[in-house]
Amino acid sequence: MIETLPTIAAISTAPGKGAIACIRVSGKDVYAICNKIFQAKNGKSIEEQAVHNLCFGLITDDGNVLDEVLLAKFQSPHSYTGEDIVEITCHGSVYIQQKILQLLLKHGVHLAKAGEFTQRAFMNGRIDLSQAEAVADLIASSSSAAHRIALNQMRGGFSNELRNLRNELLDFISLIELELDFGEEDVEFADRSRLNELSGHIAGVIKKLADSFEAGNVIKNGIPVAIIGETNTGKSTLLNFLLNEDRAIVSNIHGTTRDIIEDITSIEGITFRFIDTAGIRETHDTVENIGIERTFQKINQASIILWLVDALNKTSDIQKLAQKIIPLTGGKKLIMVLNKVDLLDKHEIREKEAVLNRLSPGSDLVSISATLQTHTDALIHKLVKASALSEIKDNDVIITNMRHYEALNRAYDSTLRVIDGLKNNISGDFLSQDIREALHYLGEITGEISTNDILENIFSKFCIGK
Amino acid sequence: MIETLPTIAAISTAPGKGAIACIRVSGKDVYAICNKIFQAKNGKSIEEQAVHNLCFGLITDDGNVLDEVLLAKFQSPHSYTGEDIVEITCHGSVYIQQKILQLLLKHGVHLAKAGEFTQRAFMNGRIDLSQAEAVADLIASSSSAAHRIALNQMRGGFSNELRNLRNELLDFISLIELELDFGEEDVEFADRSRLNELSGHIAGVIKKLADSFEAGNVIKNGIPVAIIGETNTGKSTLLNFLLNEDRAIVSNIHGTTRDIIEDITSIEGITFRFIDTAGIRETHDTVENIGIERTFQKINQASIILWLVDALNKTSDIQKLAQKIIPLTGGKKLIMVLNKVDLLDKHEIREKEAVLNRLSPGSDLVSISATLQTHTDALIHKLVKASALSEIKDNDVIITNMRHYEALNRAYDSTLRVIDGLKNNISGDFLSQDIREALHYLGEITGEISTNDILENIFSKFCIGK
Repeated sequence: MIETLPTIAAISTAPGKGAIACIRVSGKDVYAICNKIFQAKNGKSIEEQAVHNLCFGLITDDGNVLDEVLLAKFQSPHSYTGEDIVEITCHGSVYIQQKILQLLLKHGVHLAKAGEFTQRAFMNGRIDLSQAEAVADLIASSSSAAHRIALNQMRGGFSNELRNLRNELLDFISLIELELDFGEEDVEFADRSRLNELSGHIAGVIKKLADSFEAGNVIKNGIPVAIIGETNTGKSTLLNFLLNEDRAIVSNIHGTTRDIIEDITSIEGITFRFIDTAGIRETHDTVENIGIERTFQKINQASIILWLVDALNKTSDIQKLAQKIIPLTGGKKLIMVLNKVDLLDKHEIREKEAVLNRLSPGSDLVSISATLQTHTDALIHKLVKASALSEIKDNDVIITNMRHYEALNRAYDSTLRVIDGLKNNISGDFLSQDIREALHYLGEITGEISTNDILENIFSKFCIGK
Repeated sequence: MIETLPTIAAISTAPGKGAIACIRVSGKDVYAICNKIFQAKNGKSIEEQAVHNLCFGLITDDGNVLDEVLLAKFQSPHSYTGEDIVEITCHGSVYIQQKILQLLLKHGVHLAKAGEFTQRAFMNGRIDLSQAEAVADLIASSSSAAHRIALNQMRGGFSNELRNLRNELLDFISLIELELDFGEEDVEFADRSRLNELSGHIAGVIKKLADSFEAGNVIKNGIPVAIIGETNTGKSTLLNFLLNEDRAIVSNIHGTTRDIIEDITSIEGITFRFIDTAGIRETHDTVENIGIERTFQKINQASIILWLVDALNKTSDIQKLAQKIIPLTGGKKLIMVLNKVDLLDKHEIREKEAVLNRLSPGSDLVSISATLQTHTDALIHKLVKASALSEIKDNDVIITNMRHYEALNRAYDSTLRVIDGLKNNISGDFLSQDIREALHYLGEITGEISTNDILENIFSKFCIGK
């Protein structure tokens, strides 16, 4: 099948003008085609050039020199796509990039579709499907944590383990299906207790992976942090500081922040999704009531709650408010932030801190001045720590992909049915059906099982040139 | 001096997200520094890697893998800058690009300034100054002609010839200055007739180069084409067609086009600067009178005049108008465009064409319908032909740089003074002064003579990473 695929090309570097740009060409005719447009300074044809070698020369169109370039030669199967590849590094004017690409097209090369190089890498067995997906994630990643997870997955990650488990399961199903061939003879080739053990192990691995999705998703899309508190405690000022730009409206009029503003920023390599909320306050203003209602909704969606307390409030008021707020934060990480401490003396600050610590002993507490930006470093440190993502290690296995999550859940259900079936001594044909299902869903993740629809959907999300 | 320069790095591909990106690092410590952040899969240090070879490996920061990359090794003096160079091709996420760059900076690499790589190439004698300037022009070029000229200049162009002539002149000045050492003895080491011959040759070469500036400038900035004619003859419609977008206001109200609209577009690889003008018409409207005045000014600035004639006009009116317009176009290329021919029969068209041909026998004539876009291909063909730029060959020497133009003019003046001095038998010390001046200005072009101010000014116009 690979033999019939056309040779493809695309500009692989970012669009626009740069000092240099790179055009990637892959396919079985790539050397022959590039010989027509490239004259190496050493006089050799591309076939004669050394593999993985950079070769200086001219790109010419009908004798007219288009550019001086470096050409890199890769040879099947030791290339990104698994096919023969040539990478042309040219001067970075948009004009030259387009001209060289057009020249290639003139000589029969097809324009690569989004992700087509990576799709070929998958089809030629260079990488599995979850690795291919990780390539796109890697290029899209904009935070340290997302980058680390994508890189880990691209380098093999969990898919090697899944593939091994799947292969063990495959051995069992062939034995069980062999039993079925013997029909009435009631033989057992497949060791039921070993199958039970394997299924239990697989269920455990799958469960752990599926459970990591929540964390993985949060890493990819940002950790939701709700900033709550009474009106006029400086929530918008704090948000502006955290976002490092003037997004939210800052004023000292109560109820200014009627709309809930969300914004994403990266702090120490971790993506946070900050949710500014309307102040919690009794009010007759209908619009603001809606805002407050939505505040409570947002708390539910957040993983971390920043409760901003006005240090100028009376201790009794703080206690009253805490009775409202702390119950709402159950199961979330709560960081209590005593704001406006620049307006109090040390003794008063210590007193209010003591009150807050008593109200929620397990929670973090930090005293700041959002306006003067004092102790905001301590707040950021607590925020990063609360995210618990700073401790992800290179080898932590975390999934970030909804497609994987769904396939894992289905595979888990099938595996549980296998375990259940073994317990109830169900017949081999039913057992075989459940195992086949588990195999199917596990295979979907790594791409042993794939449909054109799935592939098209995955690779269309890539950028051109990858 | 080169020894003390720091190792520099920059992202050399276009800014933003791509499939891949390239970070260029140059300087004497580049191998040592990159060894600290790069682990080759083949286990070798960068010093041990083959030159011009692509080497697969990992970029790591304190043991954490940042990316899988390809590293290309270049060795002094056979590199772009003339120094040791490493080019790291990484995945194209902005995050990864920035992280690798930051990692390099952490290990003592300096961020490269705009054009700093090319500046080093110049300082290490890899290219001369006019070639360095051509690199920036090449990257900025957006039309076929501008690209061809920049490429030609980058590949040596006229600077080799200038350098050779300058060296011959240098030989003469040493002989003449030797004569001066002999003071009163009245010896002549320098052959005056040969010096005269050389000076004449140099003056000729310089003149030809300086004269090419007008064409060169036009190629770089676009060939100015004025579209003139009476109001309501379809000038704006034609301009819209030529610009391929709706820029000018199109209506059939007389005098709509009060402001002169200029726009730049590339047709068959040639950049044209189209100047729409107010209609030529007697009017009492003050604003429009200003527009008409400016029309006449614009004709002076244009190289090509498109005179749009309304085919519905009476022959006598066309003749009357021609007496006004044709004298204005003296020395310019005139293309007469008979518009609205869709509203006439063949006989009438032929009659009006005959009239126009008689009025300006040497000029081009094309009959079109701007509204229906019939025969507009023929118009474009005539326009491209009139530009005379389609025939520029790879070896045509054309200068496009104002700095070169000025230095050439000054060198020309000095050379003429040398020739003049020889004719009048002036003494060796005055002759030597004029030759020194010619040498100075010639040297400025190729960079044998340069000041930090000149260099800074030139290289600050580069993009980062080149």
